[in-house]
Order: sequence, then C-alpha cells, then structure tokens
Amino acid sequence: MSTLSNPEAEALVTSTDPHHPANHIGELCRNFYSHGWVTGTGGGASIRHGDHIYLAPSGVQKELLRPTDMFVMDYKTKEYLRKPPVLKPSACTPLFMAAYTERNAGCCIHTHSQWAVLVTLLCEQAGSDVFEIERLEQIKGIPAGPTKQGNLGYFDKLRIPIIENTAHEEDLKDSLEQAIKTWPDTGSVLVRRHGIYVWGKDVAQAKTQCESLDYIFQLAVEMHKLGLKWTQ
Amino acid sequence: MSTLSNPEAEALVTSTDPHHPANHIGELCRNFYSHGWVTGTGGGASIRHGDHIYLAPSGVQKELLRPTDMFVMDYKTKEYLRKPPVLKPSACTPLFMAAYTERNAGCCIHTHSQWAVLVTLLCEQAGSDVFEIERLEQIKGIPAGPTKQGNLGYFDKLRIPIIENTAHEEDLKDSLEQAIKTWPDTGSVLVRRHGIYVWGKDVAQAKTQCESLDYIFQLAVEMHKLGLKWTQ
Amino acid sequence: MSTLSNPEAEALVTSTDPHHPANHIGELCRNFYSHGWVTGTGGGASIRHGDHIYLAPSGVQKELLRPTDMFVMDYKTKEYLRKPPVLKPSACTPLFMAAYTERNAGCCIHTHSQWAVLVTLLCEQAGSDVFEIERLEQIKGIPAGPTKQGNLGYFDKLRIPIIENTAHEEDLKDSLEQAIKTWPDTGSVLVRRHGIYVWGKDVAQAKTQCESLDYIFQLAVEMHKLGLKWTQ
Amino acid sequence: MSTLSNPEAEALVTSTDPHHPANHIGELCRNFYSHGWVTGTGGGASIRHGDHIYLAPSGVQKELLRPTDMFVMDYKTKEYLRKPPVLKPSACTPLFMAAYTERNAGCCIHTHSQWAVLVTLLCEQAGSDVFEIERLEQIKGIPAGPTKQGNLGYFDKLRIPIIENTAHEEDLKDSLEQAIKTWPDTGSVLVRRHGIYVWGKDVAQAKTQCESLDYIFQLAVEMHKLGLKWTQ
Repeated sequence: MSTLSNPEAEALVTSTDPHHPANHIGELCRNFYSHGWVTGTGGGASIRHGDHIYLAPSGVQKELLRPTDMFVMDYKTKEYLRKPPVLKPSACTPLFMAAYTERNAGCCIHTHSQWAVLVTLLCEQAGSDVFEIERLEQIKGIPAGPTKQGNLGYFDKLRIPIIENTAHEEDLKDSLEQAIKTWPDTGSVLVRRHGIYVWGKDVAQAKTQCESLDYIFQLAVEMHKLGLKWTQ
Repeated sequence: MSTLSNPEAEALVTSTDPHHPANHIGELCRNFYSHGWVTGTGGGASIRHGDHIYLAPSGVQKELLRPTDMFVMDYKTKEYLRKPPVLKPSACTPLFMAAYTERNAGCCIHTHSQWAVLVTLLCEQAGSDVFEIERLEQIKGIPAGPTKQGNLGYFDKLRIPIIENTAHEEDLKDSLEQAIKTWPDTGSVLVRRHGIYVWGKDVAQAKTQCESLDYIFQLAVEMHKLGLKWTQ
Repeated sequence: MSTLSNPEAEALVTSTDPHHPANHIGELCRNFYSHGWVTGTGGGASIRHGDHIYLAPSGVQKELLRPTDMFVMDYKTKEYLRKPPVLKPSACTPLFMAAYTERNAGCCIHTHSQWAVLVTLLCEQAGSDVFEIERLEQIKGIPAGPTKQGNLGYFDKLRIPIIENTAHEEDLKDSLEQAIKTWPDTGSVLVRRHGIYVWGKDVAQAKTQCESLDYIFQLAVEMHKLGLKWTQ
Repeated sequence: MSTLSNPEAEALVTSTDPHHPANHIGELCRNFYSHGWVTGTGGGASIRHGDHIYLAPSGVQKELLRPTDMFVMDYKTKEYLRKPPVLKPSACTPLFMAAYTERNAGCCIHTHSQWAVLVTLLCEQAGSDVFEIERLEQIKGIPAGPTKQGNLGYFDKLRIPIIENTAHEEDLKDSLEQAIKTWPDTGSVLVRRHGIYVWGKDVAQAKTQCESLDYIFQLAVEMHKLGLKWTQ
C-alpha cells in the first residue's frame, strides 16, 4: 500500500472549512444521531472530494467523530492515503465504493433507521422484495435517477429494492451491486432487517433523499397500523 | 422585471436584528426541522414586512437557510426585488400570496407534517374532505377567523378543509383560493397526502397556530389508534 | 392595585443567577417546549420566591420567555407587584394560587401533554374520573403527599384525580380546589381533554414529578395499545 | 469510614479533561436525558477510573449533574473517598458494584427506558423471564460476553435475562448477581416494570451497548404492534 508521508496525510483532514469532508462527515453524523440513524456504532457516511474518498471509521460512536478519525482513500487506486491509527475502516467501504464507481456518487449514507427496518419486515411479511408506495408529496424529494431528469413526480410510484442481509456487512457487496444494475434509477437500496444505503451526486442530494425516504418509511409504518394502503 | 441595484437588494437581507424577516425565516425553519415539518427540502415559510414579502427558496435544506438565500418580492407589483443567484423561488409562492392578498396575512407556513398527512388519509378513508374535531383544550390555540374575534373556544368545533393534491405545487393555487373563499374563517388548509398551509397576522400567530394544529393532528391519529372518536 | 415604582418592579426580574425565578421560568419552559408540554402558547409555570409569586404570561410562546415577560404577585395581598405592559396574566393564575395556598407549594407547572390528554380520554372511555396504575418503578418518582413522608413506593398504587374541562381555564378553580381537598395527598390533578396541573415544594420536586407522570402516562398509552393492563 | 482530607477529595472531581469521570458522567446523563432514559430522577451512571468508582447521586435531576455532585468509592475497600454533602449515594451502587466485581466492568448504566419496561411487560404477558430476538443487524452492537470474543453475530440470538422488581432498588442485588452468574455472557439485565442495567469494559462499550439494546427494544415493541415475530 502506498501512503502519503504523515504531514501530507494530516493535511487531508485539516481544514477550517465546515464543508470540507473531514469536518462535514462528523457534522452529518451528529445530525444523523439525533434522527436515530447511527445508534450504537451503526450506520455511516462517506463523501467524495475530487479523487479522495472520505470514510467514517468502523465501530465508533458516530456522533463523536473528529476530523482526525477519518479514513481517506484514493478513488483511482483504491488505496488508503490516510488510515487513523487504532481505528478500523468501515465495513461499509466496499458498498459505498459500489455507489461511487457504478453511479458516480458524491456522497453515500448508510443508516440503521428503525423505520427502514420495519418497512423491510412488513414487506417480508407480504412476501415482497420491493418497497412500493405512491401518491405522497414527499416522493417528490427522491431523485428520478441517472436515466431520467430531476426528481420523481407526485404520480410516480416510489420503488426501493430490498436485498437480504448477510452475516458480514462486506458480503452485501455482490447483492448491492446486483440491485444497482437491476434498478438503474434507484438511489437507494434497503437491506432486510438492517437498514438502508442511500447515495446522491453530492451531500445535499444524498442527505435530503435519505430524510425524505425516512419520512416516507415512518409514514408507511403508521399507515399500516391505521389500515391505510401504500398503493392503490 | 424591475430589480433594485445590488447594494439595495443586499440591504434587504442584511440586519443584525434576529426578528428581521431575513434572519427570522431561517430561525423558524431550524425549529420546524426539529419538528419534522420541513424534512428533505419540503415545506417552507414566508414573512411579510411592510410591502416586502420574504420567501425561502425552493429545493434547499431548510434548516441551513441563511439570510442571503432569501427571495424578496414587492407586495404591490408582485415583482422580485431580490433573487439569490442559482436558487429557485419556492413553488409555494403563489399559495402564500393567496393568503397575503385574500387574508392580509403577515406570515405563511407550509409543512409536510406526517401527522397532517395521516389525518388527511384517515379523512380520505372516511370519505371526508374536512377534518373535524372537538372538545380539546388545544383548539383554543386556533384563531376564530377574520369574521370573528379572538380564538376558538373549547366548545367550538375545529374544522379544517382538505384540498386534493396536484402534480405541481403551484397548481394547488386555484383550489386553495377556493377553499379560502368557501371557508372564510379558516386560517389553514390541509392538502391531501401532502401537508398543510397555515397563515396568521404575524409570525407568532402563524407559528403557534401551526404548532397547535400539529399537536391536534398527532393527538387525532393516536385517538384513532385507541378507538377514540374525534367528534360526538 | 398597589404597584411598586418602576425601578423596584424591574429589580424583581433582574438577576444574574440562573436559578432566580425570573430566569428559571424561561429555562424551564424551553425544556418543556422540547417535551411538547407547552406547544402553541399552551401550558405554563410559576415559582414562589419568598412572598413573591412569579408567573409566566398568557398567550405567548413559552420557549421564548424572557425575564421581563414575568408577572410578579405578592403572595399575601394577591396583588401584582409587576405587570409587563401589553401582556396578560395567565389564566392558570387562580389554579396555581390554589396549590400555593392549599398546599404550600413552591412551584406549579401546567402542561398540555398529549399523553396526559390521552390518558384522560381512555379513562373517559372506561367511565372513570381517576387514573390508576401500579407496579411501575417510576411511580417512586411521585411524592406520597403532605400527610405522608417521602415518595410513593413500588407497591403503592398511583391515583390521579381527573376533573372535567370548562370553557374558561379560570373556571377550573372550584373543581381543582375540590379535588385538592378530596385528594389530600395528590400532587397533581388531570384535566380531561386538556392536560395536567402539577405542584411541588420546589422546582426540582414539581419538575421531576411532572416528568415522572408524563413518563407514566406515555407508558400507560403504549400499554393500552399492547393490551397490557394498568392495574391487576 | 476512612475519608481523604477535603482538598484530596475535591481533587478527585476536579479536572479540565471532559473525559475525566467527574465530567463524563454528567455529559453522559445529559445525553441519556434526551433519550428519556433518566426521566424524573430515574436511572444513573457510574465509571471506574483505576481504583476509583465514580457514582452519580440518588434522587437528583440527572441532566443537571455537576462534577461536585459525584460520589467516589474506593474499589478495594468499598469505602467512600468523597461524599457530597446533602446528597445521598445512589441505590444503584450495590448493583453497579456487582458488575464491577463480577465482570471487571469499566462503566455501568441504569436506565428507566420505556421501551425496556414495555419489553419486560410483553415478556410477562407471554410468561417469559428472558427477552429473545434474532436476525436484526443491530444485534451486532452487543458484546458476545467474557467467555467469547467480540460482538454477537447477525445469526446469533440475543437473549437478555429479566429479573423481578423489588420494593427497594438495593434488594435487586441478589437476583442481579444470580442473573450475572446464570448468564455468564450477558452484558445487561432487564428488571421487570423498571428498566435495565448495562455494563461494559469502558464508557464507549457500555453506552453503545445500551443504545443498541434500546433501539432493539423499541423495534421489538413496534414489531409486536405490527404482528411481526421476534424469533422464528
């Protein structure tokens, strides 16, 4: 593995700009913690900054992340330019890389949202591996996908593929990549009994899509409790 | 379109007063974000300041709004005095203008509250286009309307009209204006599967009315789950 | 009405001590707002400080209270020593005074908690005017009352009287006073479809009792949804 | 009881390091308060720092804890090195000590989480004294226990023993110690109608385990409402 000399590696995570990825990931994760998306040490976030992929580490409290906790990977060589001592790279890394390489993403988010998990359980109960819902204004917060333009419309049906969970997070890579190919316009993939992977062209698109999805999942669970159907 | 020269336009959003609309809208939206009212880039807020209508832009993260993100429209000419570069005016604008012109409002709020959406769905299930509830103290937080004085009383029935959602937000204008005419005392209109528009004579009245309504909608959903009736 | 001269009245609400009532009430209300207890302009709080009763005003946003918004009443003469211009005294005032005079309270809290309201509705459905629950550890957070010592025990049944709501808040005074007499050990009274009044010897006892009750009400509602009984 | 001289005792709670136990316990409790884990004066937290056991006091508002409120006990002699005047030691102390001595814990947390209580009630309804759930990714946030390595896997069943509540918290000591012996790999014990005790080798492990458990309990309650089974 080629690594930069130490001062060069430290420069990668040293910035006074709050929107620099080394600072931004921590800020995002503190927000996500308040939503219950990264409870325990679950979930994660990553930002692409030119050819540098910034990644939150594995197994740490996400709401306490500091810039010096960040891993930095070279997008082209897939080698780490910076590895914080002691910490381990996130098991999400190969999954995030799939979104970066297959979809040219600028930001990837993984949450353990309880609403996402409940939606996958309700779909399992119904024998389905696709979450479908329609006629909700918030659907307009979801990008239509790379083969289309803009966001979904109010009369478009939202469809999110669900893949089955595996013993080890990195083993989700193949089925996630398969889902990305099978669903060329999806910007997210649900993982049964686990959570969701969401990506976007930049932080704003990934984060707001993730928020809109979580809003829709919570609404879907409440609708189910009230006997209201997700689709006509 | 007539526009002010740049320094004059910038002066419209430059103030050290936290209650100046250019600052106040951002503060309101950060509060609304914590309530789940402006998730993703949903919802919005607007304040009238003399003949200047301040409007949050479309499609941005509402909890991150800065004064320089604000659009300013001349109330009389309906022309923009200030348009932030890059940003788009909110699709809510014609709807907010209806409340400003028809009701002499001082502040308009649009939320995607999940409780508001659920209430419209429960009413749809019951074949109703009016949300009705009675005998809750919080009803006293709702203004009685321009043809009456003060707020609703404990023994008054709260009635909020529901209009059907449309593909494009601006297309709600006609049905919203119709609802405003049909319901001369309402200070809010629910939009099926979408959310709610609320207005008041000033920020305090619009915001506290919006809070009281959201409280009532959440309570109504919980009551429905528990088999408790909204009206006698 | 006798009033102090202006500088003397202002001195009543001027202190750098965060625990001075003029500061403390605002801090409490910001906390209560985050719990959903003072939504809209609902609810209120009051602290006794020697012979001075501090009271939050009526009809204002409770999370924005400033020291200069406070009313100060003389405990003995029941006359206002300080009345902020424009603002109106809280309609809770006669109810808080009942707790000060009948129970020698040091702090009174009134919330519109949705859990409290739901509990009164479930009791109404069951034809009961007393909320009863037993065998929850959190019951130990409720004072046993003036004729006893300390707090309730785990095997004590918690019983909170419920009075019927009235058109005007001040009209609750008689039934609240009656409930205080009929239930000599209660530190709180529920108001049907409205909320709860809670008092304690000081801020800590009133606030922690109010929190424990709200915790129990929320748990009771969830228990009801799950088919779990409140009492054996 | 041997006690250090006053300056030595004060030095035990005086540090500018936010991770010093005297500061850290208060920070943890403010976080726990926002989760509803230490409502009223419920719950508590303790950290071992070498041979010094730091303990939050009994019966106080946990979100307001200051370093000077902390009790410090000598691990070997079980004598208090520092006792704040007025305050009482937590009734949790003998329970926390069980985890310190039997499991070599570095941090102990006790919460009154409503989700934990509801799970114990649902188990009671089913006649069970063990909470069991399987196939949830968040289970991987729970340590496998001292006789194993690392954390539970996705295909491991999570099993948490439930002990019956007692009139006095300190009387839980025997059954807690028994549960610790009977369940040599558990890092937590549920107390029926009361809450949960969680411990870990350090603050991070105890806190993240506690968060993961609470996430799982909430999910379990929602699953139950939706007719979804906890185990196959």
